Amino acid sequence: MEGVFELGNFRLQSGEVLANAQLSYETHGSLNADKTNVILYPTWYSGRHDDNRGAIGSGKAMDPDKYFIVVPDMFCNGLSSSPSNTPAPQDGPRFPSINVYDNVIAQHALLTHEFGIEKIRLVAGFSMSAQQAFHWGALYPQMVEAIAPICGSARTSRHNWLFLEGLKCALTADADFQGGEYQNPPELGLKAFSTIYAGWFASQTYYRESLDLTFGGQALQNMEEFLNTAHQVFAKNDANDLLGMLDTWQSADLSNHTGFNNDLEKALSAIHCRAIVMPSETDLYFPPEDNALEVDLMPNAELNVIPSVYGHLAGGPGFSNDADDEYIDNVLKRLLL
Amino acid sequence: MEGVFELGNFRLQSGEVLANAQLSYETHGSLNADKTNVILYPTWYSGRHDDNRGAIGSGKAMDPDKYFIVVPDMFCNGLSSSPSNTPAPQDGPRFPSINVYDNVIAQHALLTHEFGIEKIRLVAGFSMSAQQAFHWGALYPQMVEAIAPICGSARTSRHNWLFLEGLKCALTADADFQGGEYQNPPELGLKAFSTIYAGWFASQTYYRESLDLTFGGQALQNMEEFLNTAHQVFAKNDANDLLGMLDTWQSADLSNHTGFNNDLEKALSAIHCRAIVMPSETDLYFPPEDNALEVDLMPNAELNVIPSVYGHLAGGPGFSNDADDEYIDNVLKRLLL
Repeated sequence: MEGVFELGNFRLQSGEVLANAQLSYETHGSLNADKTNVILYPTWYSGRHDDNRGAIGSGKAMDPDKYFIVVPDMFCNGLSSSPSNTPAPQDGPRFPSINVYDNVIAQHALLTHEFGIEKIRLVAGFSMSAQQAFHWGALYPQMVEAIAPICGSARTSRHNWLFLEGLKCALTADADFQGGEYQNPPELGLKAFSTIYAGWFASQTYYRESLDLTFGGQALQNMEEFLNTAHQVFAKNDANDLLGMLDTWQSADLSNHTGFNNDLEKALSAIHCRAIVMPSETDLYFPPEDNALEVDLMPNAELNVIPSVYGHLAGGPGFSNDADDEYIDNVLKRLLL
Repeated sequence: MEGVFELGNFRLQSGEVLANAQLSYETHGSLNADKTNVILYPTWYSGRHDDNRGAIGSGKAMDPDKYFIVVPDMFCNGLSSSPSNTPAPQDGPRFPSINVYDNVIAQHALLTHEFGIEKIRLVAGFSMSAQQAFHWGALYPQMVEAIAPICGSARTSRHNWLFLEGLKCALTADADFQGGEYQNPPELGLKAFSTIYAGWFASQTYYRESLDLTFGGQALQNMEEFLNTAHQVFAKNDANDLLGMLDTWQSADLSNHTGFNNDLEKALSAIHCRAIVMPSETDLYFPPEDNALEVDLMPNAELNVIPSVYGHLAGGPGFSNDADDEYIDNVLKRLLL
């Protein structure tokens, strides 16, 4: 079931107020009587709630026959409040900067006020959605029973920040971007954006083995067809929306909240719940080494590396492959035992 | 000693003729009487012969007291014939496409016609210069006694091609680029170019350990200062020149020569000389796996992985560190025994 939760005038961590903020979401399954069967599974970069559906289904860990699965849309994804759908004076390039905690606090309001939920069995997430899972674990330790961050980190690394900065520079170099006041989409910038992104989101081996020609479950003829397909993943989004989510990603920092005082060790040690952190062995921007350092500082966490040549794509429903999907699903099932 | 060798009207592999082609170069040391002390050490992407000087010196493998070291400038580097220095009608975006063999054949003309050289002790190279070393070994097996390709491949991989395609899209997305007919440099495109490049040329660990703040032997304060410094590496070049070298790189393919018929196995097996192929353990676009596959097909080659967190930069004089420089130098000394 799709819905929109009205957050009203929503005060962001920056102090700025997002007027009439909206949180779009989709739910799968039914909330049981004592409200103890909740899974939260937020969206990732450029994704929308329908993209999450691939990991949800009967017989899977996220089984709607058993669980009430809530998929909130991240701010700036074009469904929740975003540069592209917010009226003046917060429209387009004037949309405020959003951080990961802003998303998590809005999601908390949805779960508690709309559904009266007090416990979450699992917060699962891929990529930026994994970053949200870490933040949930640190901010609401009494509420969250387990987290499963897949191909994502608690704090965006300097290298990851740089990869994103390159994307931003390319998109905004297009004269049609006009400082975000474009009339027509900045096509050249968007094409550069998706081409650069494609180099990062899968591993060298993925391309050596021409697995790009199976991208999205299709049978593609060549790199050009692949790049056109990958382009659609990003170009379905408005350019300012892409930059808004990118800003959230670049600024992602678990320690950036009252109580943690920018102390990442303190923030990670606040994640008391059970956690299985799942990097992909070949992820180029969320490498396993970053997660290993984080897991060392979490009291109840396990590092479980996905053995995959799909790079970052290993964790993304619809982008990966049966073996990786099954590997992840089995870990999630173990967390839900 | 710096010089320029006149190639005259130089027929390229494409069939096109580059009018009044020029090959710039620098030599170090003296050619001995029987002309048996020659080392060839070409330039790499965006580099010029003065950038190679860091690996050359008394006591080093490339010792000008013992060897006659020739450093030819790659076409499109702004010193040899390039879009930026060639008169109409082959100026700017009309400059012909150059492949790696074109460079190697021009260098062969320099060595044989200008210096009467018939034997080369070693062709060493970093990055695109490593690609030239492979090509030398395959095309002139009677002439070349050893090659040392450092952080480079015999054929540009599909993933490497894609990384380069992203750079190209970003640079040309700048409206100031004007299809190569710019009056002023496309600054935004160049800034995007160097920012994207910086994400690739070093490893995730390099940035995790803030080694970027020591880039080029400097003491930098933050990522912004680092990016400004990295920008100078590329922006010293003309935009069309950058794209010309990029085209050479994207099309690099050892098998693309008469006699090899696009059969990479055949081309690699033609490299009879002794070869030590040195990838960096953490290189993101010339990963060790690519070289391992190549070495398997070369009759007299050894894979020697540089144990470094510097990524691609491990092999670049002035970009790496004392330990990596020494590691490489020791391998080169072994090849010269």
